[in-house]
Amino acid sequence: MTLATDPLLAPVPSSLPPVERVARLPAGFKAGGLTAGIKASGRPDLALIVVTQGPAAAAAVFTPNRFAAAPVRLSEANLLATMPDGRGRWGWAEAVVSTSGSANAATGAAGDADQAEIGRAVAGVSGAIERRVLHLSTGLIGTRLPVERVRAGLERLAPALASTDEGLLAAAEALRTTDSVTKVATAQVEVADSTGRPRTVTVSGIAKGVGMIHPRMATMLSVLLTDAGAPPAILAMILGRVAARTWNQLSVDGDTSTNDTVFLLDSATRTAVMSLEPEAIAALERGVEAVARDLARQQAADGEGASSLISCQVSGAADDADARAVARAVVSSSLVKAAVHGRDPNWGRIASAAGNATLADSAVLTASGLDPDEAARRSGSPARLDPAGLRIAIAGHLVYDGSAGGPVPFERAAARSAMDAPETLIRLDLGLGDGTGEAFGCDLTEAYVRENSEYTT
Amino acid sequence: MTLATDPLLAPVPSSLPPVERVARLPAGFKAGGLTAGIKASGRPDLALIVVTQGPAAAAAVFTPNRFAAAPVRLSEANLLATMPDGRGRWGWAEAVVSTSGSANAATGAAGDADQAEIGRAVAGVSGAIERRVLHLSTGLIGTRLPVERVRAGLERLAPALASTDEGLLAAAEALRTTDSVTKVATAQVEVADSTGRPRTVTVSGIAKGVGMIHPRMATMLSVLLTDAGAPPAILAMILGRVAARTWNQLSVDGDTSTNDTVFLLDSATRTAVMSLEPEAIAALERGVEAVARDLARQQAADGEGASSLISCQVSGAADDADARAVARAVVSSSLVKAAVHGRDPNWGRIASAAGNATLADSAVLTASGLDPDEAARRSGSPARLDPAGLRIAIAGHLVYDGSAGGPVPFERAAARSAMDAPETLIRLDLGLGDGTGEAFGCDLTEAYVRENSEYTT
Repeated sequence: MTLATDPLLAPVPSSLPPVERVARLPAGFKAGGLTAGIKASGRPDLALIVVTQGPAAAAAVFTPNRFAAAPVRLSEANLLATMPDGRGRWGWAEAVVSTSGSANAATGAAGDADQAEIGRAVAGVSGAIERRVLHLSTGLIGTRLPVERVRAGLERLAPALASTDEGLLAAAEALRTTDSVTKVATAQVEVADSTGRPRTVTVSGIAKGVGMIHPRMATMLSVLLTDAGAPPAILAMILGRVAARTWNQLSVDGDTSTNDTVFLLDSATRTAVMSLEPEAIAALERGVEAVARDLARQQAADGEGASSLISCQVSGAADDADARAVARAVVSSSLVKAAVHGRDPNWGRIASAAGNATLADSAVLTASGLDPDEAARRSGSPARLDPAGLRIAIAGHLVYDGSAGGPVPFERAAARSAMDAPETLIRLDLGLGDGTGEAFGCDLTEAYVRENSEYTT
Repeated sequence: MTLATDPLLAPVPSSLPPVERVARLPAGFKAGGLTAGIKASGRPDLALIVVTQGPAAAAAVFTPNRFAAAPVRLSEANLLATMPDGRGRWGWAEAVVSTSGSANAATGAAGDADQAEIGRAVAGVSGAIERRVLHLSTGLIGTRLPVERVRAGLERLAPALASTDEGLLAAAEALRTTDSVTKVATAQVEVADSTGRPRTVTVSGIAKGVGMIHPRMATMLSVLLTDAGAPPAILAMILGRVAARTWNQLSVDGDTSTNDTVFLLDSATRTAVMSLEPEAIAALERGVEAVARDLARQQAADGEGASSLISCQVSGAADDADARAVARAVVSSSLVKAAVHGRDPNWGRIASAAGNATLADSAVLTASGLDPDEAARRSGSPARLDPAGLRIAIAGHLVYDGSAGGPVPFERAAARSAMDAPETLIRLDLGLGDGTGEAFGCDLTEAYVRENSEYTT
């Protein structure tokens, strides 16, 4: 007979499909990127993805920031025009254009006109209908986009777009700002088609984001592509639920950007519609979640100035919403982040952060699957937590056990050395129910302060 | 004819009574502090304030953290025992004891027993009834208090208590943890007595707090003393409203502590009851607010690692709750804090932070004077803000004017040099209504990261 290992000392096993960190372009798209001259650095700053066979079904989540940038507002208006029932959250799209170097936020009517002009240019070079162009932009707030350079870049880029993985990788590279790595992820899942036959579909994602990242709807830029054949409203439902479990659980610095956007495009909706049975939708959702979760983890690991990814996994909560709230509170705490930087197994700061956890706003709770009335009632309320039932493990070391009176003796030196790794896992069990959730963040370093105080970004 | 100066370029004029940064002990109290040996540093770590003539009326605000420390829970239970109607928020008190060096948080039943033992020791040396002892503690989470040292310290301290300003200053010094300065403030106001005759009363406060500070009810430790003669429930109403305008608008690092407590004690309630006319209550409230606001500003200026106080004043909001939410969002933003550290007039980060502002939770909104139904409806909802009407000034320089299309040209070098000061004022006018509010924070520095990653605190 052997002692069962305490599950708190290991990551929660994942039931998601495996993910490869490669760019793999699903059927029905072409993509590319190049240097248009928006950034002073001369790095790639213009990306374009075009649907090759008529419009793709599209879904979006946008920042709730009241200073939402021109590309956010234009994308929302365009989606709405293609499908009024979609409330600007789903519809049809033929192209996604991304500019990097200027956020085109807080630029007033002139910025709106610039973004519309870029939409017309995309339509001109790609053959897309202007209302079916989706827009992304990232970079400095308050600066105008150099529209003529973008137009010239689009004229060079459009004929060079490729229906290849390299094309998608080039688009991902042009999405970057201060990202130190290009962020791509791909999963393949079996989804039944409308006749019930299994079909392997691809979900591929590209993303950028290292700062001004904090959970609230989207929190950065990402484009997810698939050839699953799902209708727009189904994509929107899947994207909302997945964002609630992944990007809404990601925090780098507590600031929610003006430009956060995630698009999910499906090239096969009109040619190879998938089954709408619950099993098929669940299979696609798992593929989308696997890719989104991996991209969110890449973003956390590459957080501005970060030396370590912090992941917090919570089990035993009264429900999933509570678990996610507690996990988010822990990875968002400046003091926990600084302690991880110092490889300090400071469970007191973790307990204090957990004790402050409050539920997300009602929009996020509704998107995650809560009944709207319950979401309204619980938004912003404290997560249920009883210190007497809480257990905490840091990097595989049990440090607090409320049922055993609180702090437990542990090997501090061993815990410190286990924290000296690219990822630190903080596990909490609340001892109340079956709710689980996780969140992703990064340590707080002097380099973060330097990056954000020495330069205007 | 001269051009009127744009009010956005200057601080909002204060209507509060003047404050002196001195310890001035109101009549009816004695106080003192000494080194009991809780802290390894040998600095003063035990403070005691005793009411000289029977119980004082008392009001309290406590942290909402679910890991509320033993002293918080015992103080609440004691207040409740003295006045069941006060819901643990007001009642009667004869002594306040403060230990510094251990927070006595997350210490389980043993920590509760320690705190009760300290209460019995205070009663023994001071003659106070045990239920009329209020408790404060601050320091490391998860460590036990050395009760025997505290008891020995109390036995030496009690006979040395003095009804002098020096006694109060000694108590303030013993309240400190990593505070670099002792925080005291005093105001004097005229309050009508029960016969309508004006009487000059003193409001004096001591406080500690430099980290784990974020708006939510209290956010640090403070004791306010007065000889105004107000009943407990009136003190509680005043303290709730004042905390909503001052300490709930203070953020150092986004972490709400396990030990936050503010006490307001009035020694004259049974001997010289004040008028309960609205004018008298308002006069006392202004005195309490002046002291609380000044202590909050001292705490922000002394924030861990901080080199600069950031104050954000918002006018033109739809109402005061919106104005306070926007001000709090600006001073809480890591990116704004880093920009101020770099003396970078980065209005884009200010606009983005303002665009994320959400209202406080319903408890804070109710305490601030909102109708409970309205507070429940609006808690956590976005503050009303229209980029087209927003104007922003940094350190006296207009940088953004939504009504003039957005960014406005300004002297960057002059703005930078105006920011190179012990306090940076960020002014926003929302152009929507008459709501005003302010918040206090500090810059984010490499020293903050060092202090919180290199040592367990």
